Amino acid sequence: MATRTTTPDASRRSERSRRAIYEAALSLIGEVGYRRTTIEAIAARAGVGKQTIYRWWSSKAEVLLEAFLDVGEQANEAAAAPPGVERFDGLPNSGDLEADLKFVLRATVDELLDPKYDLPARALAAEGVVDRELGRQVVERLLEPSLQLYVQRLEAAQEAGELRADLDPRIALELFVSPLAQRWLQSSGPLSHAYADSLVEYALYGLAPR
Amino acid sequence: MATRTTTPDASRRSERSRRAIYEAALSLIGEVGYRRTTIEAIAARAGVGKQTIYRWWSSKAEVLLEAFLDVGEQANEAAAAPPGVERFDGLPNSGDLEADLKFVLRATVDELLDPKYDLPARALAAEGVVDRELGRQVVERLLEPSLQLYVQRLEAAQEAGELRADLDPRIALELFVSPLAQRWLQSSGPLSHAYADSLVEYALYGLAPR
Repeated sequence: MATRTTTPDASRRSERSRRAIYEAALSLIGEVGYRRTTIEAIAARAGVGKQTIYRWWSSKAEVLLEAFLDVGEQANEAAAAPPGVERFDGLPNSGDLEADLKFVLRATVDELLDPKYDLPARALAAEGVVDRELGRQVVERLLEPSLQLYVQRLEAAQEAGELRADLDPRIALELFVSPLAQRWLQSSGPLSHAYADSLVEYALYGLAPR
Repeated sequence: MATRTTTPDASRRSERSRRAIYEAALSLIGEVGYRRTTIEAIAARAGVGKQTIYRWWSSKAEVLLEAFLDVGEQANEAAAAPPGVERFDGLPNSGDLEADLKFVLRATVDELLDPKYDLPARALAAEGVVDRELGRQVVERLLEPSLQLYVQRLEAAQEAGELRADLDPRIALELFVSPLAQRWLQSSGPLSHAYADSLVEYALYGLAPR
């Protein structure tokens, strides 16, 4: 996507512009919504020419989706792994599924409560609900790749005997991920670490008595 | 809200107008979205005067929320109870929680897949995500009352020993209701009776081996 130039100075300038464009895109969509965010306004706020944006991205949707992907990458880089667990490219695997899922869901709660993320993500989600093509891209490029990290962790738990072998991990993850996402989108209940913990416990051990 | 007149003929006319207004409101919001649906357009499509709508409702949001409440009531009236189970004002209670939840979630899948419901509900949900006041009303008047029916059924199951006594029913229901709602809103996976059944089984018996 971003065409890298060859000299170090130009490359640093490109990187600065790219980040300014992402920040402008996210703040604008949070302020005026998806539809009223234009390439022109993003360029103006980022202090770059419109042509810079058109050179690197083919559409407004593409700029915004990549701005969100970048937020996700930055959050991953900033997140500490749980004590004693190695950083790796996916969800933590300490050998204790319950602890690892609680760790990740608590971090997700913190992210969803961060206003820097909340307003733009809400605007993108709302538009994705009614604009089917944008919704498809949000699912394919943003949502599904992050859910696949849960699938991998659950598969590892199945191999370790921590999770029932007969269940579909792609459905199983929805029991704790979807309630969190719904509460956030609909503001239908408080988001807290205690709530995240309950979801993990209820899902793992079931609602029926053991 | 609807001011009933006293003669039977006038009352029948009012009822016909009310239903025409609901149908016009739902079809318009599905076609042009929440924001571009106006009281004027609803009145024109319903074949009533604008003043008829203003006499009965105070805002566009109120007309639309009541149109959805009416859809819900009609769906409840039309839904047969499972074989051998008495109709009552809430979710079925056959004494078999798993069977009752599967029955209700399968019916919900059918409703969500019905285009008559899908497009207007999607438009309302999208607007509720970004318009906080509308979202609050959707949660308070549409969502929460229907979730309270699950709470009641789960409380009955707790008394019957079918459900762990130490869990919060308002959180527990989210394990099977929210995934369905999310898949519908985001089109992030297929909605089917088999999927509804899996959610109920996974939630009741848990993801960890017993």
